[in-house]
Amino acid sequence: MSQRSRDLAHVGSVELFTATPQETVDFFVRLMGMTVSREAGDSVYVHAWDDYEKFTVKVTERSQSGIGRTYVRAAGPEALERRVAAVKDAGQDGAWVEDEFGLGPIYLTRDPDGHEIGLYYETEWYAPPAELKPALKNQASAFPGRGANVRRLDHVNYLAQDVPANGAFMQDGLGARLTEQIVLDAGQPSAQWFHICDKSYDLVYTADWAGHRGRLHHVAFATDTREDILRAADVFLEGGIHIETGPHKHAIQQTFFLYVWEPGGNRIELCNAGARLVLAPDWKPVSWSQAERAKGQAWGLKTIETFHTHGTPPVEPGP
Amino acid sequence: MSQRSRDLAHVGSVELFTATPQETVDFFVRLMGMTVSREAGDSVYVHAWDDYEKFTVKVTERSQSGIGRTYVRAAGPEALERRVAAVKDAGQDGAWVEDEFGLGPIYLTRDPDGHEIGLYYETEWYAPPAELKPALKNQASAFPGRGANVRRLDHVNYLAQDVPANGAFMQDGLGARLTEQIVLDAGQPSAQWFHICDKSYDLVYTADWAGHRGRLHHVAFATDTREDILRAADVFLEGGIHIETGPHKHAIQQTFFLYVWEPGGNRIELCNAGARLVLAPDWKPVSWSQAERAKGQAWGLKTIETFHTHGTPPVEPGP
Amino acid sequence: MSQRSRDLAHVGSVELFTATPQETVDFFVRLMGMTVSREAGDSVYVHAWDDYEKFTVKVTERSQSGIGRTYVRAAGPEALERRVAAVKDAGQDGAWVEDEFGLGPIYLTRDPDGHEIGLYYETEWYAPPAELKPALKNQASAFPGRGANVRRLDHVNYLAQDVPANGAFMQDGLGARLTEQIVLDAGQPSAQWFHICDKSYDLVYTADWAGHRGRLHHVAFATDTREDILRAADVFLEGGIHIETGPHKHAIQQTFFLYVWEPGGNRIELCNAGARLVLAPDWKPVSWSQAERAKGQAWGLKTIETFHTHGTPPVEPGP
Amino acid sequence: MSQRSRDLAHVGSVELFTATPQETVDFFVRLMGMTVSREAGDSVYVHAWDDYEKFTVKVTERSQSGIGRTYVRAAGPEALERRVAAVKDAGQDGAWVEDEFGLGPIYLTRDPDGHEIGLYYETEWYAPPAELKPALKNQASAFPGRGANVRRLDHVNYLAQDVPANGAFMQDGLGARLTEQIVLDAGQPSAQWFHICDKSYDLVYTADWAGHRGRLHHVAFATDTREDILRAADVFLEGGIHIETGPHKHAIQQTFFLYVWEPGGNRIELCNAGARLVLAPDWKPVSWSQAERAKGQAWGLKTIETFHTHGTPPVEPGP
Repeated sequence: MSQRSRDLAHVGSVELFTATPQETVDFFVRLMGMTVSREAGDSVYVHAWDDYEKFTVKVTERSQSGIGRTYVRAAGPEALERRVAAVKDAGQDGAWVEDEFGLGPIYLTRDPDGHEIGLYYETEWYAPPAELKPALKNQASAFPGRGANVRRLDHVNYLAQDVPANGAFMQDGLGARLTEQIVLDAGQPSAQWFHICDKSYDLVYTADWAGHRGRLHHVAFATDTREDILRAADVFLEGGIHIETGPHKHAIQQTFFLYVWEPGGNRIELCNAGARLVLAPDWKPVSWSQAERAKGQAWGLKTIETFHTHGTPPVEPGP
Repeated sequence: MSQRSRDLAHVGSVELFTATPQETVDFFVRLMGMTVSREAGDSVYVHAWDDYEKFTVKVTERSQSGIGRTYVRAAGPEALERRVAAVKDAGQDGAWVEDEFGLGPIYLTRDPDGHEIGLYYETEWYAPPAELKPALKNQASAFPGRGANVRRLDHVNYLAQDVPANGAFMQDGLGARLTEQIVLDAGQPSAQWFHICDKSYDLVYTADWAGHRGRLHHVAFATDTREDILRAADVFLEGGIHIETGPHKHAIQQTFFLYVWEPGGNRIELCNAGARLVLAPDWKPVSWSQAERAKGQAWGLKTIETFHTHGTPPVEPGP
Repeated sequence: MSQRSRDLAHVGSVELFTATPQETVDFFVRLMGMTVSREAGDSVYVHAWDDYEKFTVKVTERSQSGIGRTYVRAAGPEALERRVAAVKDAGQDGAWVEDEFGLGPIYLTRDPDGHEIGLYYETEWYAPPAELKPALKNQASAFPGRGANVRRLDHVNYLAQDVPANGAFMQDGLGARLTEQIVLDAGQPSAQWFHICDKSYDLVYTADWAGHRGRLHHVAFATDTREDILRAADVFLEGGIHIETGPHKHAIQQTFFLYVWEPGGNRIELCNAGARLVLAPDWKPVSWSQAERAKGQAWGLKTIETFHTHGTPPVEPGP
Repeated sequence: MSQRSRDLAHVGSVELFTATPQETVDFFVRLMGMTVSREAGDSVYVHAWDDYEKFTVKVTERSQSGIGRTYVRAAGPEALERRVAAVKDAGQDGAWVEDEFGLGPIYLTRDPDGHEIGLYYETEWYAPPAELKPALKNQASAFPGRGANVRRLDHVNYLAQDVPANGAFMQDGLGARLTEQIVLDAGQPSAQWFHICDKSYDLVYTADWAGHRGRLHHVAFATDTREDILRAADVFLEGGIHIETGPHKHAIQQTFFLYVWEPGGNRIELCNAGARLVLAPDWKPVSWSQAERAKGQAWGLKTIETFHTHGTPPVEPGP
């Protein structure tokens, strides 16, 4: 049984690449219910209404879609030091940088697959402008009541060439804990879900069918209710956004979900876990077989084909 | 048992008076999820997203709040003629006018309490501008996904000096049917709910505690879900709108409700009836006693005091 | 434009055939939230919690699944007489019987496809036993809070060999009005939705791919919320009920839906229309082309194949 | 700023006293959607459907209502030892016992107010009987779809004679962290909310207006949706359960809530926090003033008077 180290508190924010930054930002602001907290150079920072930090997603213009850095906040200064040491022990090198909006020193490293991960502790808290001052002082900014109305970032699902190798880094390097996985009949896992906080997953690896490295399957945002997701489906329908699959309920992790492609091509999930948390310190990872997966999602929906062919950046099938 | 005549199809739209037209329109557009379909003189016409007619509420500037005309659509030309005759038989005079946006000939009359009622059949269907064209052609305009997101007008609740007299007009003149009422221990009804379509109520009379005439208790708008109403409560909280009472469930009619005061002072209800309809052609009116009313709403919420002191326009207690 | 005659008030109840009556009744009671109101001979009558009549579904043991009588209530005695005359004028014969639990004289006829339809006006109102007495006297029986918790019957969707011929009977014989339809590129309708009350549909014809007569596509029940349907999906999952497709939102009629097969094999739909009603007396039927249908449901779900191969009773493909 | 020690994982279960055990158990099973996992002596153990441990509430017959032991699970054996040492340092004595169903060694102590708290690590996982085996293997038992359908225990709110003294114990002894509090104008806190896991609160102290010790304000259970709570309100209404206040949304912690009194008299809360979690390792406690509290709950509901007069066991006002 893998233990959580508790050195890492939660995933703080993520950087997404897009060739159509204006449309991507409009998606996050108008349809997802977020607001712009900063514009700088090729990047626009968007903020979910209850994120206590300065930004939730950094939208950066690039010739191709995909994921940039994933920032993960440590539980404290010593915890950060412990993780940096563990990452080195896990064989991944890195370097200290201090180059991000709202964040202090960042230890920048990569998982074996090449996804950039920035570990940090120091962060500036979000201070809403007057027009976004919330009526209740125990939330970060005003409730938007707009579109998908996402409260916060939920998780990142990476595509990886070698799931077990990256899963080992997730456990040994980041101190995350495996909660659920898909194990192929041949014996190796094809997808692994890890958590660092009490949510049942925060970081996920899915086998990259194309055999490439450093790609993204999806980034997910949490809504307060399933109804927010049903409403969002109508919002995306009107907005001309490609709805890939859902709303439905995952068998794995039991998350109520909706998947869309933002205008830049990155897959975005809206998710709601209800009151489900993994609080057991001795949680035993749940393994799903190919036969169990073949049954589809919780209520029988078959997994859509593009779920196994669309990742960002798009690539030609690999070797 | 009173029968429905079926000559009247549904309440079409309502005119509200406000001394702060800009704020009132902003309330309907930004917080209720409606759009402006026309501006003319002292009036701004706002449209709910699934209203097939040209407007849902006509917001008219006046020195005081209150209700203007209530437009009720007939089921056909002959049905309209029958109702005009019945209104005359009921002792209310009126006149034909043709002076309203999107509507053909209107027979303008008043209930005994003085509320203006316009009966019509001819109407122009709403044609959305390009930016409001819906993705699904079986709805009137694009799904807003904004604020309370109201789909349509639901009902009007009038304050009346003499409830039984106005209730008799509702039945004999308009051919509406009584579905529920509050009957005081002294024997007379203090509030009566009537329906003309299959919803359990469309037009309501509540005794005016101030003894005045022609005033409004509230106008209600229907949302698709109860969650829309819970979300709207947060939207109104952020918007600085006075939330008078709710969300809760009425014992009478079992409507899930939220009451707020729009910036002009008129009481607005958001309501959701779930799948409840009154389909029985021989429905027996349900009468509630003072003792039953004293129990409060369905889940025990006590009726708020302002519910019996705030009407529009505001007045000094009468003779 | 077809007009509603308003002679018929609503669909009252439906008879379903099943070879596994015990399992079918258990499905309606334990999972759908209904109760047994009578057992007699080969039939068990089940009642939805807010049905004012004595039963909602008559479950009758037969060697095969399928639909028996559909009972439709008239708006009054004269309205019933008018419909009986219209049915005869439409070329369908019939006869008066008085042989059903809780119902008075029934004019028993058939649509051109052979589905039995019983028109009636006289009905006994449901009187709940002590343990089902509701806390609020304006509902028929106690709120179950169990499983799908369906409030009432919503609509019946028949398979028919000749949709236009049956659609003509629906309009001329029953005085129903066409609200939406699917029109094939060849020009003829392959499915037509009709309403008799203010709901957007009550009775539907779908082309029978097998070329047979008198079969059933599905019977639908209304829940108060979409959440009831999401919960029901988990209830059916635990109950071992086959979930065919959904939850999702129909493009046609925009109903939020879930389809399952009750243990006897009949397709059952749970539906929620939100606040959508068709109140316009001059509603223009909406026609959907094959190309529009190919887009799938509102949020992109492709129509499941069994939706075009599973009907009851099951049959061999016809000529 | 107080830090969480992370030595304690979550509140495991709670013991409630009742003079009407049969009615109290029926409340938890039939209306709350739980099941009986054991009966022994004067106690009946009930289990919420997604609780991984053997019981969620231990219902024990006593002449008076109130709370017995609160069991809190440690993150590991060493973490448990650290907490035991910290509790001793905090001046509270205790003793090791091994006397509870499903639990290993328990360090039994009391907070300064006298509430019994049992700290443990070893626990037996719940193994559902055949009829409660879940369809999805990543949940503890079958989804009930019954009544309030609570997923798990959420928090305990204790009445205490001296809130600051008990709050200090919560932080120094249990290593919990203060997230929100009410601070009286006189300067001292009258209520404090603490969390040990990522939920925004797990254990709460409210000033006992009667000046007594060891009493209970309420025990709360989490539902997956707000709709579960709205439905539950109808279920309680039909069940003759006293609904004290709600459904509504708290300003403090922003929880959607409903309060009822179980037949034994103990106040029970149903709560839903949406996607709100307190993930910041450096969360700054939010303090609410008397003036802010006077505004009532989030949407304006005034706090009901019994909220400040009803606790269990009931007592005469103290010195």
